[in-house]
Amino acid sequence: MRNFKLILEYDGYEFSGWQFQPFQRTVQGHVQEKLERIFKKKVNCIASGRTDAGVHAVGQVAHFKVETIMKPAQIHKALNAFLDRDVSVAKVQNVPLDFHAQYSVKNKTYCYTILNRSYPSAHWRNRAYFYPHPLNIPLMRQAARLIKGKHDFKCFQAASESSKIKNTVRTISRLTIVEEGDFIHISITSNGFLYRMVRNIVGTLLSIGSGKLPKDIIPKLLKSKDRKLAPATAPGHGLCLMRVRY
Amino acid sequence: MRNFKLILEYDGYEFSGWQFQPFQRTVQGHVQEKLERIFKKKVNCIASGRTDAGVHAVGQVAHFKVETIMKPAQIHKALNAFLDRDVSVAKVQNVPLDFHAQYSVKNKTYCYTILNRSYPSAHWRNRAYFYPHPLNIPLMRQAARLIKGKHDFKCFQAASESSKIKNTVRTISRLTIVEEGDFIHISITSNGFLYRMVRNIVGTLLSIGSGKLPKDIIPKLLKSKDRKLAPATAPGHGLCLMRVRY
Repeated sequence: MRNFKLILEYDGYEFSGWQFQPFQRTVQGHVQEKLERIFKKKVNCIASGRTDAGVHAVGQVAHFKVETIMKPAQIHKALNAFLDRDVSVAKVQNVPLDFHAQYSVKNKTYCYTILNRSYPSAHWRNRAYFYPHPLNIPLMRQAARLIKGKHDFKCFQAASESSKIKNTVRTISRLTIVEEGDFIHISITSNGFLYRMVRNIVGTLLSIGSGKLPKDIIPKLLKSKDRKLAPATAPGHGLCLMRVRY
Repeated sequence: MRNFKLILEYDGYEFSGWQFQPFQRTVQGHVQEKLERIFKKKVNCIASGRTDAGVHAVGQVAHFKVETIMKPAQIHKALNAFLDRDVSVAKVQNVPLDFHAQYSVKNKTYCYTILNRSYPSAHWRNRAYFYPHPLNIPLMRQAARLIKGKHDFKCFQAASESSKIKNTVRTISRLTIVEEGDFIHISITSNGFLYRMVRNIVGTLLSIGSGKLPKDIIPKLLKSKDRKLAPATAPGHGLCLMRVRY
């Protein structure tokens, strides 16, 4: 038995997220189907974490175990030949049997992209969240500094998950807000993310940047541990999983 | 009667090019349909030039004449509300009656994007030409210098057009090849473009960069005025109309 690590890029627009669901087009389902076609046996492909419908990736990592004599380069070529054009494999690597794409994660980086101008973009319609209202970026950066660090992020966890996850303390080691023309890129690195945590943080930063909420709402929200107090979740299509570190 | 100038952005993937054709989804057809819905009368919308199927734009310019009391800002808002998400209007401006989007052009800039790495990109699949073979960029730049300037570009004109256009002399004032990670951007500014000229030049530069042809083929091709001698046309989806100057 050998263990293979994949680095995957996908356009989330036409996928119902990563996680396999019967009768739905999911990234996991699609990749597994092609792996099973290559190896002619059942393959279980496990990612660093699920991504929601519409969410993109340029550096999703997954692993699968299989008995084969195929070389990583051959698997790489075969997979890219079989996969639909909205998923591509950047790398296939042979890794030790104890490597686990989810459990071995050291940190992950997500980037949320906002298009902040008065008219939408034809090219970025499925890749950036179009937000036409003025934003105070320096204020958002001040708020970001209050979110960075080790906190109980329960208030930014999707309510549906609140009963499942016991420990909601995470450490955000990096949170940057970079302007690039009309685009704003919010990049977050953490040792772990709660379900919808990035999109909930972005929703809150947008509320602060647009003046709907003061920046000192952040310590109050963190302390409250109450999702219902935090602003709305930002839409999935602005989000992209950039990199997973092991 | 008033004259309006539009700056348009479009994703060419699902369009059969700019030019109206019955029973086809074209950018001109789509924009005119929405203008006619706004003004409740027939509107003829003329672009700086047609773009082919699959070709994109971030700065296409068009004009239309109509009798209306609507302000440019109102037309802008109404158009973006009606247009499908793969076309967007960046600007609507009231211009003198003698402004003509095609005849008044001073120069145009196109950019051709190549993804030069071993595996394709899910995100750029319809925006960049995936070319996995090694390319000698310095050699391509040397060839580009031989193309720049005032020449008879007949050898780079689509054969189908050769009988229609009498004067095939054009001046390329700028031709740059910029590397950005795995992407190569070939940017060309000229006072006029023959049909498929950019894609034919890019096809030739790729033949030179990959070692299939020597760079001194350029003066020979220009002198020959023979499309049949020049290499294949690069595919449309790598091309984007960037800017039109008046």
